[in-house]
Amino acid sequence: MGNDIRVSVVGAQGRMGSSVVSALAAAEGMTPALAVTADDDLGVVTPDNTDVAVEFTVPDATLGNVLKLVEQGVSVVVGTTGWDDGKLSQVRKALEKRSGPGSQSVFIAPNFAISAVLADVFAAKAAPYFTSAEVIELHHPDKLDAPSGTAIHTARAIASSRGQARCASMPDGTQGNTASRGQVVDGVHVHAVRLEGLNAHEEVLLGNAGEQLVIRADSFDRSSFMPGVLLAVRKIASGDYPGLTVGLDTFLDL
Amino acid sequence: MGNDIRVSVVGAQGRMGSSVVSALAAAEGMTPALAVTADDDLGVVTPDNTDVAVEFTVPDATLGNVLKLVEQGVSVVVGTTGWDDGKLSQVRKALEKRSGPGSQSVFIAPNFAISAVLADVFAAKAAPYFTSAEVIELHHPDKLDAPSGTAIHTARAIASSRGQARCASMPDGTQGNTASRGQVVDGVHVHAVRLEGLNAHEEVLLGNAGEQLVIRADSFDRSSFMPGVLLAVRKIASGDYPGLTVGLDTFLDL
Amino acid sequence: MGNDIRVSVVGAQGRMGSSVVSALAAAEGMTPALAVTADDDLGVVTPDNTDVAVEFTVPDATLGNVLKLVEQGVSVVVGTTGWDDGKLSQVRKALEKRSGPGSQSVFIAPNFAISAVLADVFAAKAAPYFTSAEVIELHHPDKLDAPSGTAIHTARAIASSRGQARCASMPDGTQGNTASRGQVVDGVHVHAVRLEGLNAHEEVLLGNAGEQLVIRADSFDRSSFMPGVLLAVRKIASGDYPGLTVGLDTFLDL
Amino acid sequence: MGNDIRVSVVGAQGRMGSSVVSALAAAEGMTPALAVTADDDLGVVTPDNTDVAVEFTVPDATLGNVLKLVEQGVSVVVGTTGWDDGKLSQVRKALEKRSGPGSQSVFIAPNFAISAVLADVFAAKAAPYFTSAEVIELHHPDKLDAPSGTAIHTARAIASSRGQARCASMPDGTQGNTASRGQVVDGVHVHAVRLEGLNAHEEVLLGNAGEQLVIRADSFDRSSFMPGVLLAVRKIASGDYPGLTVGLDTFLDL
Repeated sequence: MGNDIRVSVVGAQGRMGSSVVSALAAAEGMTPALAVTADDDLGVVTPDNTDVAVEFTVPDATLGNVLKLVEQGVSVVVGTTGWDDGKLSQVRKALEKRSGPGSQSVFIAPNFAISAVLADVFAAKAAPYFTSAEVIELHHPDKLDAPSGTAIHTARAIASSRGQARCASMPDGTQGNTASRGQVVDGVHVHAVRLEGLNAHEEVLLGNAGEQLVIRADSFDRSSFMPGVLLAVRKIASGDYPGLTVGLDTFLDL
Repeated sequence: MGNDIRVSVVGAQGRMGSSVVSALAAAEGMTPALAVTADDDLGVVTPDNTDVAVEFTVPDATLGNVLKLVEQGVSVVVGTTGWDDGKLSQVRKALEKRSGPGSQSVFIAPNFAISAVLADVFAAKAAPYFTSAEVIELHHPDKLDAPSGTAIHTARAIASSRGQARCASMPDGTQGNTASRGQVVDGVHVHAVRLEGLNAHEEVLLGNAGEQLVIRADSFDRSSFMPGVLLAVRKIASGDYPGLTVGLDTFLDL
Repeated sequence: MGNDIRVSVVGAQGRMGSSVVSALAAAEGMTPALAVTADDDLGVVTPDNTDVAVEFTVPDATLGNVLKLVEQGVSVVVGTTGWDDGKLSQVRKALEKRSGPGSQSVFIAPNFAISAVLADVFAAKAAPYFTSAEVIELHHPDKLDAPSGTAIHTARAIASSRGQARCASMPDGTQGNTASRGQVVDGVHVHAVRLEGLNAHEEVLLGNAGEQLVIRADSFDRSSFMPGVLLAVRKIASGDYPGLTVGLDTFLDL
Repeated sequence: MGNDIRVSVVGAQGRMGSSVVSALAAAEGMTPALAVTADDDLGVVTPDNTDVAVEFTVPDATLGNVLKLVEQGVSVVVGTTGWDDGKLSQVRKALEKRSGPGSQSVFIAPNFAISAVLADVFAAKAAPYFTSAEVIELHHPDKLDAPSGTAIHTARAIASSRGQARCASMPDGTQGNTASRGQVVDGVHVHAVRLEGLNAHEEVLLGNAGEQLVIRADSFDRSSFMPGVLLAVRKIASGDYPGLTVGLDTFLDL
């Protein structure tokens, strides 16, 4: 226990945060430290009690929380969405200011589901070898945006790797009404299904004459994010990733 | 052999017609009779040499061909597309004129793939028991129209059976851009994928809280239509379906 | 509210029972009545306070519970497994003894997931029209039996409907080691997958030359049973099903 | 045309060989050279008329053919199956004898379908990040062996990468009859479906708590091998792969 990673959770009463608290309690080599909620003062989280803080709050609060934690000398794993280049840049600067002898780290990932991250990476790697590629994402009907951010990311990754390989544009003989053909993201058709009973799913279809490759990631519930969160905590605690790191694929040996 | 059904093929050099000629040669209880091409005179097809004519030509020619065959006293199984209510009505009238002692028949089907017909029927039967239903059709990229006629038919069948059961409209919280949500056909979202390597496929997704039913029909090549064509020939030759019959589901015991 | 169906739950603290209690509270036209646990006396459940009792307990207790409730004049919807012909026969006799002026009912179903019931029915209806049919069931790795009872039921239903239609046996050219070909149930190959993250899923594959029909039912969690339970409660409360009824398909208009 | 790769086909009248001849005729940057059949003398294939020979014959003939072509100074792309370590070793020695100033090459692949090769590689890369992994392969019912060689290869690759990562063995609570659980290959369960209408398909399921990754490769017909064959011809003709190379993944940038 003495060598356990001490992990504090910021946003501990939220849906994701409370799942992280449960996952920590069951994980080998980790000890839950503080459970901080929106009403608490973040100042209590310090290197004296915490090796890594996991932050799952809301887009409006996350940048402030991360900057504060960095200032206090704590490394952070961030699961809240809503990050853009400007915000990332602020975190980078805050970390540079702190860079003394230690190895303080911030890790931010748009998606902690390992299956989703792998699907994204594999789709991009495979795309140059196929004539056609389309993306179907499927979610519960309460989701506000369509297509999902993950599907847009996958489509762009496919387009980028095909562009680098100088692939020809994909064949599409559709004439007339194209409403059923979905949204075109960087030349890749993306379809969004909204179905009661589903959670978060993505399917990438890649086709050549006579063959198809299908890569599908299913996230059935919040527990799907926990292996990714625990992996990130271990990697950040190792000290091997000083500074800012973005994306769970960094930690996967692909 | 003496009791074999004698089957002539009209459009025997086309892609579908030549497949029918091959299928007939291999089918039990059937004998290929005449193989008629676009240059031939349809007048050679008569009850003396033919029990059932199978017509696979082009939308512009099919009505004329069928009326001519009916006039000559031959029953017809029609696989050519492009039929509408007006054309069907003309065939009905022509058959009524002929209705003497016999049992002359015309059978027209928009789709002869048994899997596609069953998917369509099952989707309609299941739809009232689910909160959500969407249709994804997937075809080769040379297809000119999107979504497919079959997918539109399935969406309408789903909408109709839900309407009769007074189902609530489907939940969809999408805000903003809905381009990725596909084409809405009678309230049912229909998505069209165009992928090199595919032929003709349809998937119906039905969802309730905590569960999903997926019904998928794959037509890998033209041979998928042959069991349906042979079934129709047998049923029409039986004399049990005098007059005009539309749709392969008529012959399926569902 | 005065006309609400009053529903008591027997086994109210179990995983399924507690889900039923929650579902009742949210259902229109129903009022939760008594919540009975293993320690309570079933004698409290009577027509004075209950229109329908829902019984979700354990195989050892269910027959006794149902007989007792029948004796007290209460109609029952039973979700506990472990029923066989002998036990069903005892319930039938108990109901016959009671048959006076009223319309007391017992309904027993091996599976309340509507998607699973529909997949089973559709597979049996479709099977005679295909050359090949196989069943794949997929469950969480904690499941003790393989294949699942539902998959065995589906395989037998496929075999039965093919037998009635005098279908030829399915082609299988496998020579040598057949361990990978799964378990053969009445001539139908059944495959069982055990995968962390899954709950309960079944896929039926039906094939002809050039085509495939796939019917898949996914049960993601316990909530998938609730629509079926509520449907059964409504049907039993209607008085239209006096005596013993087995199987949710009875209530589906297929 | 002057710089086109001149490609001869050995086994030009076989099913695969004749497909290669057609594919060559349509490929940019390649010119069909000789079409050699079983009755012809291989001695006619020489560097004077051929840059690369493609060999698709039968397991009994392929080693002799390749050794002869190597002796004549011709580089070879081999699609015939049935190779083992002993045969590969003979080819390696033959190539070493020839190693003069040039860059003569032999390339042998058990599977030329890019989708199948990618599925195999991705499954092995992903496997260490999941608790469970199983393989389902699906083929036409005329196939003699079960499971397929490709599925065995995939299962072994999964087992090997999990072994290197010191993964725990997969959970499986099945008690009693395990016939439905398929064949266990190096600890990985492999299921084989045989279905009329299918050609060659493989699906790898990987599961963690709350999530699933599915990787599926569909080979619908022989044309699926042609992109892989043409890729191999280009790579071998480039001179960048002197000596013996095994496996199409060598040429893929993964």
